[in-house]
Amino acid sequence: MNEPLSFTTAFTVEWGDCDPARIVFYPHYFYWFDTAFQHWLRSAGLSQALLTERYGVVGTPILEAHAKFLVASTDGDRLLAEARIERFGPKRFRIDYRLVRGAQLLVEGWEVRAWVAKVGDRLRSLPIPPEFGEALAKVSVDEIRPVRVGADRPHW
Amino acid sequence: MNEPLSFTTAFTVEWGDCDPARIVFYPHYFYWFDTAFQHWLRSAGLSQALLTERYGVVGTPILEAHAKFLVASTDGDRLLAEARIERFGPKRFRIDYRLVRGAQLLVEGWEVRAWVAKVGDRLRSLPIPPEFGEALAKVSVDEIRPVRVGADRPHW
Amino acid sequence: MNEPLSFTTAFTVEWGDCDPARIVFYPHYFYWFDTAFQHWLRSAGLSQALLTERYGVVGTPILEAHAKFLVASTDGDRLLAEARIERFGPKRFRIDYRLVRGAQLLVEGWEVRAWVAKVGDRLRSLPIPPEFGEALAKVSVDEIRPVRVGADRPHW
Amino acid sequence: MNEPLSFTTAFTVEWGDCDPARIVFYPHYFYWFDTAFQHWLRSAGLSQALLTERYGVVGTPILEAHAKFLVASTDGDRLLAEARIERFGPKRFRIDYRLVRGAQLLVEGWEVRAWVAKVGDRLRSLPIPPEFGEALAKVSVDEIRPVRVGADRPHW
Repeated sequence: MNEPLSFTTAFTVEWGDCDPARIVFYPHYFYWFDTAFQHWLRSAGLSQALLTERYGVVGTPILEAHAKFLVASTDGDRLLAEARIERFGPKRFRIDYRLVRGAQLLVEGWEVRAWVAKVGDRLRSLPIPPEFGEALAKVSVDEIRPVRVGADRPHW
Repeated sequence: MNEPLSFTTAFTVEWGDCDPARIVFYPHYFYWFDTAFQHWLRSAGLSQALLTERYGVVGTPILEAHAKFLVASTDGDRLLAEARIERFGPKRFRIDYRLVRGAQLLVEGWEVRAWVAKVGDRLRSLPIPPEFGEALAKVSVDEIRPVRVGADRPHW
Repeated sequence: MNEPLSFTTAFTVEWGDCDPARIVFYPHYFYWFDTAFQHWLRSAGLSQALLTERYGVVGTPILEAHAKFLVASTDGDRLLAEARIERFGPKRFRIDYRLVRGAQLLVEGWEVRAWVAKVGDRLRSLPIPPEFGEALAKVSVDEIRPVRVGADRPHW
Repeated sequence: MNEPLSFTTAFTVEWGDCDPARIVFYPHYFYWFDTAFQHWLRSAGLSQALLTERYGVVGTPILEAHAKFLVASTDGDRLLAEARIERFGPKRFRIDYRLVRGAQLLVEGWEVRAWVAKVGDRLRSLPIPPEFGEALAKVSVDEIRPVRVGADRPHW
């Protein structure tokens, strides 16, 4: 894989996602990160259940997650989520995310995920099969939009 | 403030916090990060509502969050959450978290929070009043336990 | 209002909505009930924030909620949510919900919501203004589909 | 079983459980219903995982759930959750819940749960083994406190 892979999906911020400060309770952004990845999987004809069935992997568990919150969002906002994979490591991969509202970048972050299977009684990290990246590549679109905030800093 | 501040609280991993891989759905760990901070506030006689009332701040919003997931946890696990503040910046502060189960470090991470108030119609980042750190210091305990994993890496 | 009002929206069941039994953790269905109502509001040019602004009401709080779970659903399922209001009481109203997957009724239930405003320091239940029902009626569609399960009972 | 069984546990309402109206987002109350039951299981030396291992059941799925919301609660409130089983049906049982804050009844409701196991490829409702009720009975306490609201109606 030479080209980075990317995928775009969308979410609506709901009333129940917001806290008494009237903005998204921040752990929900990680829910949307994860969900964007699940949408990518499904769009590629895959799913966590299928990965388990075919490869014995258990859920592509998260090793690390990060997010920078630039602009707040609230009830009713429509978010576009862009996921991007620069390259696959042998046993793990990193997905970069950008959540935008219109032309405005709200959140950027990433997850590192492992390819972990049950071998006997234990979980073991295993090499990612090439067809996994190929499946994601098939639905990859080169539409990471040129949304850039002038300065990479919060809005206050 | 010369000494780092620290605070410890506890949580139980519940059935509804786990995903079909039978482990915690990772955004919940950030819920526990946030909740540990809220426990610290309340233990210090504060709360988000009181901060709003006294200082006009809106929720100490998160600028950045990070977590490294070392060992998985599941339904029924009892987690100890240790929060630690090394120092306060003028308008923001970072809280480091460690979630442990017995002697085992499961998750470590941090949040950067701002001190943001409504000034007229706009949100503005303002200097953190010294009495905020002093209130947290009053209930600070020097009990960050010497839990160290030999190597800082995942369990597979 | 003589005709019942109805509105339809859709959701996807996500990985993070499911529990270790690989089915939706049931409180999430109530999240979708609430969210269907919020979609109806927004589709009618309203929102909780606008209701507060115009009428001083605080969130149309729930007095009672009920659900019957007929068929389980899981990660990746696309659910159609049908909301229906038979009539408005003077100070409260009931919304009936049906969640369907294809031709299959999965969940049915209802919420009773109040019209509650802050009067001085206290919350008080107040008469629902007629224009609220009229706004919802404008986007009402008569498309409650004739999905009926033969017998009103669980699937096992 | 002639005597009703009961069990009491406690929860704290957290910031992230509340919505922009500054009260608990109501689906969370069902999370606490479920969690109270899980606490009862664990207190009795059981768990969903153990039920699966011993009896092949998949999660005691919910057939029906109901709640009446009498008084709102918010960030920092300490809730006592009382769970009660009047009797077991052959293949299902109902748990009644009461959430109280001090002497005040906030929420009452119930769940109907089934005893469902995988038989071949299908889920089937099976008779509840007597030792299940006996295990819950061992940790049953007769401490349903005489909290009664004068009139069974909301607080506004």
